[in-house]
Amino acid sequence: MSGWVRIAGLGPGNDALITPEVTEALAEATDVVGYIPYVARVAEREGLTLHASDNRVEIDRSQHALQMAAEGKRVVVVSSGDPGVFAMAAAVFEALEKGPAEWRDLEVSVLPGITAMLAASARAGAPLGHDFCAINLSDNLKPWALIEKRLRLAAQADFAMAFYNPRSKSRPEGFVKTLEILRQECDPERLILFARAVSTPEEEIHISTLAEATPEMADMRTMVIVGSSRTRTIERNGNPIVYTPRFTPE
Amino acid sequence: MSGWVRIAGLGPGNDALITPEVTEALAEATDVVGYIPYVARVAEREGLTLHASDNRVEIDRSQHALQMAAEGKRVVVVSSGDPGVFAMAAAVFEALEKGPAEWRDLEVSVLPGITAMLAASARAGAPLGHDFCAINLSDNLKPWALIEKRLRLAAQADFAMAFYNPRSKSRPEGFVKTLEILRQECDPERLILFARAVSTPEEEIHISTLAEATPEMADMRTMVIVGSSRTRTIERNGNPIVYTPRFTPE
Repeated sequence: MSGWVRIAGLGPGNDALITPEVTEALAEATDVVGYIPYVARVAEREGLTLHASDNRVEIDRSQHALQMAAEGKRVVVVSSGDPGVFAMAAAVFEALEKGPAEWRDLEVSVLPGITAMLAASARAGAPLGHDFCAINLSDNLKPWALIEKRLRLAAQADFAMAFYNPRSKSRPEGFVKTLEILRQECDPERLILFARAVSTPEEEIHISTLAEATPEMADMRTMVIVGSSRTRTIERNGNPIVYTPRFTPE
Repeated sequence: MSGWVRIAGLGPGNDALITPEVTEALAEATDVVGYIPYVARVAEREGLTLHASDNRVEIDRSQHALQMAAEGKRVVVVSSGDPGVFAMAAAVFEALEKGPAEWRDLEVSVLPGITAMLAASARAGAPLGHDFCAINLSDNLKPWALIEKRLRLAAQADFAMAFYNPRSKSRPEGFVKTLEILRQECDPERLILFARAVSTPEEEIHISTLAEATPEMADMRTMVIVGSSRTRTIERNGNPIVYTPRFTPE
């Protein structure tokens, strides 16, 4: 058996942010599986079968990938960003753990990618230049009470915060509540950054404060970064630079 | 004036993890500045001057880069990993903010890279597959009390945690205290992962628990990842897979 599964990160959108390791895996693959818009980023070629599936079928997709590998195929599971950050790696391991014992002998590896928060941070400056946390604001897979608890403790810890999946049409209220919680815990002048579709032609970077931010500033393609109390801007022509200094005084 | 500064991430060590964007910036550069071991990763070529400097001179190095760009040079500042995560981006912006006003007109950009925690996570499975935080354990630039506060709040928030700079010869005691704090806040069976020199020939991955971990398991080349209460292992031949499920029950 020479099949394998490589769970690969395609980065935030621009092909110049795809690592050579991922490019090589795609070149060796017989099959690619993933969410429709991510599979659409993979070039068709002879000998490669593309299996695009819809959102919320991550376990089915993972089982399919593992089953094909067990049959000797070379399968790349594509995620945007990094596969280990709110993406397909955990789903594949859930499927592997619950699947047939022989799947544990398969060669399964994770190929890291540029995750959205680091691409967004880079475009704005260095807002995550000091201690920070990453929180998925979707309550599809966890209770809202846990999200609220993490938001409050992260604010009390004075972490910068990166929010994945801040807002969708089916969950419009979560980001409203998030802004309310942050306004209770942080100063109104706290910086908040909305980075939409980073590294793509639709990229939009908007820098605001907790006092001025509105829920509509975010959608499902937006990465939201809230600064720590130390995060600051440098004014210049065009967008200011947003960064968090390395030094924190006593 | 056509000079620029690009603050670029070289990833954790393996050249297959360097993005094409960074490779192109290095190909266009007239000058590369950075910490000695990172500059050593850049191939010499005609027309390119390498400026390697020692640790702890980040501001001098940043001023040098900005000054050269103001003189029309094309300067790449290299970091390992991602430049926005405990690396050179924040230092360059600190220098820019305090420097001559004309530096604000310079073209300065950040080119993201594969940061150590995501490379380490990928090698182990997906321990950062759910909400997590990143903490620099060095107290060179912040008071230890702030580190301790963040550790306790992060544990109470049940974040997975990634620790940069866990331990050095000059700071042997910080990681001892970190383990003590975590043992007070978390279950002894909590998973802790030591990932040394990930993606290089010296790579070592060691999976332990808080009960069994010792300070000597980490050094300056080690990325430490502590799981959340949900992080689990899948046993198989060789190292187990460590991952954090996407789902958290009520």
